[in-house]
Amino acid sequence: MQHSRRFRLPGTDPHFASDNISGAHPEIMAAVMEANIDTPAYGGDQFTEDFHDMLDTQFGTGAYGFPVFNGTGANIVALQAVSHPNSSVICADTAHVYTSEASAPVRAGISLKPQPHSEGKLEPADIATVVATDLGNPQATQPSAVTISQVTEMGTVYTPDELTALCNAVHEAGLAIHMDGARLAQAAAALGLDLHGATTALGVDILSLGATKNGGLGADAVVVLSNRVPEESLAPIIKYTTQLSSKTSYLSAQLTAMFGTSLWHRNATTANAAAARLAQGLGDIAGVQVQAPQANTVLAAMPEDLVTRLREHYVAHLWGHSAAGLPIVRLVCSWATTEDKITDLLKILDTA
Amino acid sequence: MQHSRRFRLPGTDPHFASDNISGAHPEIMAAVMEANIDTPAYGGDQFTEDFHDMLDTQFGTGAYGFPVFNGTGANIVALQAVSHPNSSVICADTAHVYTSEASAPVRAGISLKPQPHSEGKLEPADIATVVATDLGNPQATQPSAVTISQVTEMGTVYTPDELTALCNAVHEAGLAIHMDGARLAQAAAALGLDLHGATTALGVDILSLGATKNGGLGADAVVVLSNRVPEESLAPIIKYTTQLSSKTSYLSAQLTAMFGTSLWHRNATTANAAAARLAQGLGDIAGVQVQAPQANTVLAAMPEDLVTRLREHYVAHLWGHSAAGLPIVRLVCSWATTEDKITDLLKILDTA
Amino acid sequence: MQHSRRFRLPGTDPHFASDNISGAHPEIMAAVMEANIDTPAYGGDQFTEDFHDMLDTQFGTGAYGFPVFNGTGANIVALQAVSHPNSSVICADTAHVYTSEASAPVRAGISLKPQPHSEGKLEPADIATVVATDLGNPQATQPSAVTISQVTEMGTVYTPDELTALCNAVHEAGLAIHMDGARLAQAAAALGLDLHGATTALGVDILSLGATKNGGLGADAVVVLSNRVPEESLAPIIKYTTQLSSKTSYLSAQLTAMFGTSLWHRNATTANAAAARLAQGLGDIAGVQVQAPQANTVLAAMPEDLVTRLREHYVAHLWGHSAAGLPIVRLVCSWATTEDKITDLLKILDTA
Amino acid sequence: MQHSRRFRLPGTDPHFASDNISGAHPEIMAAVMEANIDTPAYGGDQFTEDFHDMLDTQFGTGAYGFPVFNGTGANIVALQAVSHPNSSVICADTAHVYTSEASAPVRAGISLKPQPHSEGKLEPADIATVVATDLGNPQATQPSAVTISQVTEMGTVYTPDELTALCNAVHEAGLAIHMDGARLAQAAAALGLDLHGATTALGVDILSLGATKNGGLGADAVVVLSNRVPEESLAPIIKYTTQLSSKTSYLSAQLTAMFGTSLWHRNATTANAAAARLAQGLGDIAGVQVQAPQANTVLAAMPEDLVTRLREHYVAHLWGHSAAGLPIVRLVCSWATTEDKITDLLKILDTA
Repeated sequence: MQHSRRFRLPGTDPHFASDNISGAHPEIMAAVMEANIDTPAYGGDQFTEDFHDMLDTQFGTGAYGFPVFNGTGANIVALQAVSHPNSSVICADTAHVYTSEASAPVRAGISLKPQPHSEGKLEPADIATVVATDLGNPQATQPSAVTISQVTEMGTVYTPDELTALCNAVHEAGLAIHMDGARLAQAAAALGLDLHGATTALGVDILSLGATKNGGLGADAVVVLSNRVPEESLAPIIKYTTQLSSKTSYLSAQLTAMFGTSLWHRNATTANAAAARLAQGLGDIAGVQVQAPQANTVLAAMPEDLVTRLREHYVAHLWGHSAAGLPIVRLVCSWATTEDKITDLLKILDTA
Repeated sequence: MQHSRRFRLPGTDPHFASDNISGAHPEIMAAVMEANIDTPAYGGDQFTEDFHDMLDTQFGTGAYGFPVFNGTGANIVALQAVSHPNSSVICADTAHVYTSEASAPVRAGISLKPQPHSEGKLEPADIATVVATDLGNPQATQPSAVTISQVTEMGTVYTPDELTALCNAVHEAGLAIHMDGARLAQAAAALGLDLHGATTALGVDILSLGATKNGGLGADAVVVLSNRVPEESLAPIIKYTTQLSSKTSYLSAQLTAMFGTSLWHRNATTANAAAARLAQGLGDIAGVQVQAPQANTVLAAMPEDLVTRLREHYVAHLWGHSAAGLPIVRLVCSWATTEDKITDLLKILDTA
Repeated sequence: MQHSRRFRLPGTDPHFASDNISGAHPEIMAAVMEANIDTPAYGGDQFTEDFHDMLDTQFGTGAYGFPVFNGTGANIVALQAVSHPNSSVICADTAHVYTSEASAPVRAGISLKPQPHSEGKLEPADIATVVATDLGNPQATQPSAVTISQVTEMGTVYTPDELTALCNAVHEAGLAIHMDGARLAQAAAALGLDLHGATTALGVDILSLGATKNGGLGADAVVVLSNRVPEESLAPIIKYTTQLSSKTSYLSAQLTAMFGTSLWHRNATTANAAAARLAQGLGDIAGVQVQAPQANTVLAAMPEDLVTRLREHYVAHLWGHSAAGLPIVRLVCSWATTEDKITDLLKILDTA
Repeated sequence: MQHSRRFRLPGTDPHFASDNISGAHPEIMAAVMEANIDTPAYGGDQFTEDFHDMLDTQFGTGAYGFPVFNGTGANIVALQAVSHPNSSVICADTAHVYTSEASAPVRAGISLKPQPHSEGKLEPADIATVVATDLGNPQATQPSAVTISQVTEMGTVYTPDELTALCNAVHEAGLAIHMDGARLAQAAAALGLDLHGATTALGVDILSLGATKNGGLGADAVVVLSNRVPEESLAPIIKYTTQLSSKTSYLSAQLTAMFGTSLWHRNATTANAAAARLAQGLGDIAGVQVQAPQANTVLAAMPEDLVTRLREHYVAHLWGHSAAGLPIVRLVCSWATTEDKITDLLKILDTA
């Protein structure tokens, strides 16, 4: 038997590959240590009770949710909660759940209807297009939900106006809207909104709430924000998708430590600022084209030789091509990205 | 929107409800703290490399596996690795995957063929029965694997001879055998075997290796032990079942700390000894019928009034009825079960 | 590329192998010929309108259903109509859907809970057993339905009293009951009941109505008989299980010709009488043990040498062993079974 | 219980709604009558043996297949034969399997990757795009096949050169190519090719062979044309997708009568000629824009008032809009479309 030992990424320095390469924030570790006691299993513990209270406080009275292990788990649970056996979910063709979660959606019975994206975003017209063709058509899957990512996979952030307009269009069509909030903290911080203001207040119905990429040890949550989602469906879905932790307390403790305090905002602000600084430095390098990042993701177009030089040192994902035909590299900053790390990377590229 | 807040178990004292109510062992917490650094995601890190080496050392050269989040995840991943779209998996009708993982198996396309159990165990004749009826029959699902639990859900432990005979029968029929080893440590300790001796050496092909119930913070693994399982299938299955952690290092660190040292054996021995002590105490109480536990699970038949008194204080699961018609209560000890806790429980029952 | 040409059954004379080896009755062929006109597709035709009216007349006001292609299709559609993503369906371990439809159930997301049968039947206590263990248990699949076969796979027929008691037990537990009526006609004829009396009147909620085995060219139907089944779910299920015929009219015409006239009763009576005659003849042969058949299936225990002689000529399915250890052969009669065919078979065996 | 009686289409005259509104050709009916005898079930009959021989003769030595009930069944079976649990199938965003088979694909575990179409067709560059992004990417589904429709849903026909280039691109990428040949007969007749020349010779690996829309009573087939498709997988797939007929002989007899004779070509030629005549007539009407049809589908752009007038009489499907913004109506001719029917329709529109 040969060892394939898959998932071993090529490259050496993992920094900037994604924000999940950073460890957990000390306040998260402290919360996990504090949770290390004998306690009822499967969420019947005080830490999970506190998590429920935190959701009420931060996302609005009536918000209801449960911790899960990871972002794909959160997305798959949430989309099942707004799907039925003959339904479809509209997404941008850049959506993580469409491009980067392998066959998890189809194996969970989620039928995706990808639409061409606008800088990673969906627009109300995209909803109208699918609804006009499919809704009530006995030959077609029946659209039941829309999923968006905030921050998007193109590093952009929906403005409150954009999101309100989209949610309205979704609701008018009788559908529910899911937000993949793996980087919700970074988006909310960039927009100057609190958690409720960035989600419930804009019309989001169900949320994948990510802590892992913002300094968690490993915890996300599914949060139902409106009565467009049948709340009672959540618990069995979490169980049968294998996302129910017997030791839920450790997940709950992380989530409360992050979203029940200012930690989410502090970490996100740090990450966004690091991305701004990185983009500024990249923009000063000859041949590199970069726009001011909207959150903590930097997309930089650069000549092939610069890409090659960068990838000799870093695990850097390619992200399509610019209008001018240059390859685009994605670089992501996190709560733990230091000025030194940014300087190191810029030195690699800046040989002028 | 009403709050259902499911999974909140009734009862007060969680002790003895299961071994997953105990926290993580200090050595596990130390390993997690040590793993808290920037590191490649998705298993490309040194902690996961060490985990791979640990598997080689402890389960035999060529053992290959990957960390997952929990026991249901491990079972679902492992059974998919030995299934195909028209196959079935033979199990005892007490198997956790059949009775206690909700619709996770059917949602993952796993077709279970439950057989009447013998104290929680399958016997070679059970395999023969299904194979004679189904194998090669174009009307029937095609048996591709057998799954057993070690320790079983009835608290029993397969002896090496029993397991060898079963594995031989499975292999002669052309099938693979999976072990749900959520409590493998407790079984191996009870049998006086090392990890290789309790699994690979007896003929097990693929293993759900549990750390969570033996002092882990939250980590299990799927381990391929023979070339009857196509190794290359494991990585995509872990991804599409939502069981791939971006921060695999924290899971790997736990598993290496537990199975790469004597921790698994020390914790299991403690749990087994606690169960023996508890059973002894229960046996001294008038009206209670209990056998010497084979590992860390105690099944005690007792009159209804004793059950009622017990459940006024403890989250105690009922586990069928004895031949004499008495309800059976299941009580599980863990690495963290103290003498005081046992004494407390016995006092509740012993009013003589 | 080698030709496997599967499904080619061994043996020579197909008679008595099953009732689906007989062709279509002339009245069915005439109905198909009459339906051979230009007509709206997908059930918007007059023949399907007539089929709907027939259901009202024969199964009671409010009966609602749709034609499907075959019995497995009917079962899979019907069981999905009474399932949800976390539910289970209780069946006898002899049920065709459990033993003989390969992985069709699991691929359709139907989780079966097989129970030990009593001559092919379920009893109220079987329902109670599963319900007591699983209902409301967050670890278990949630029982939502029970499926039975009438005629059963063991050739027995539920009496009206048995069926009423079972339906009551099912309904009291909050579940729905499905009848696999691949041989409903034969059962109803044997019981002296009309179609309504054999189904709706006894409490059946949803029915697989079989014409194929009783002289159809190839047509079955799913019929909803009570408001325990959400009627609106039926149409999309038929579509997404691939069981929607664009030329529904040909299926509808067959079903109306069979169940809207006395044809179902005449054919079933012929088949049942043939089985009675065959059993009588078999009983006269030394060494053969046979009971009076309850419908059109004969189960005959006989010594190995008789089985061997029989199978030199006929495609005869083995059906377990008698209490005395003799192999049991299943022989099925149909509307087209002639006295000559019976005589031929008996001659093969009767060498005295 | 209210009757929804779904699938009842609006409108009156079904002609031109699709080619499945026409009845079966007399030669098909004669073949079905001839097949009406006692015969082994599940394909072990002489008619199915003849069907196998016909495939050899018409599609090339080694062609292997089996009858199924309908087009959706054929597509779902075929795509499962070229899929695995983590794979995806590339299709045009106009593909019937993507737009018009409800959730049948997702329920069968088929993950579709729709690409923007070019007049209903895929081009080699579309394959390259998906392969470049997904193949070998552990985050993405793994492309395993491409599906095209011939005739396409836009009424166009791939030329032999186009199809050869596409098949080469598919094979070079290591994928297999499936053809949805619901209207293969019409395409082959239009191209002047025989069945082998229109499929196997161009590089098609697996085929949905449609008879239903070309004068069948109701029969299609899945045909494996190359060793890129594991032949042994076909039989179990047909069983577990509910597409196995116990009375296969009636399906086989239809398919042999159609594709083992000149009937497929005669019927297709009639249908194509009718479409040409219809398009010519429509082109003469003021305001109607229509191109010469490539097979038996006519797409005609016309002003709203003409659409309204047409739909007062006919079940006419809308098919998007022209570049000039006019609604497009799809009209389909069949083997049974008469000159009178065409004249009737033209009269409705032509009021000049």
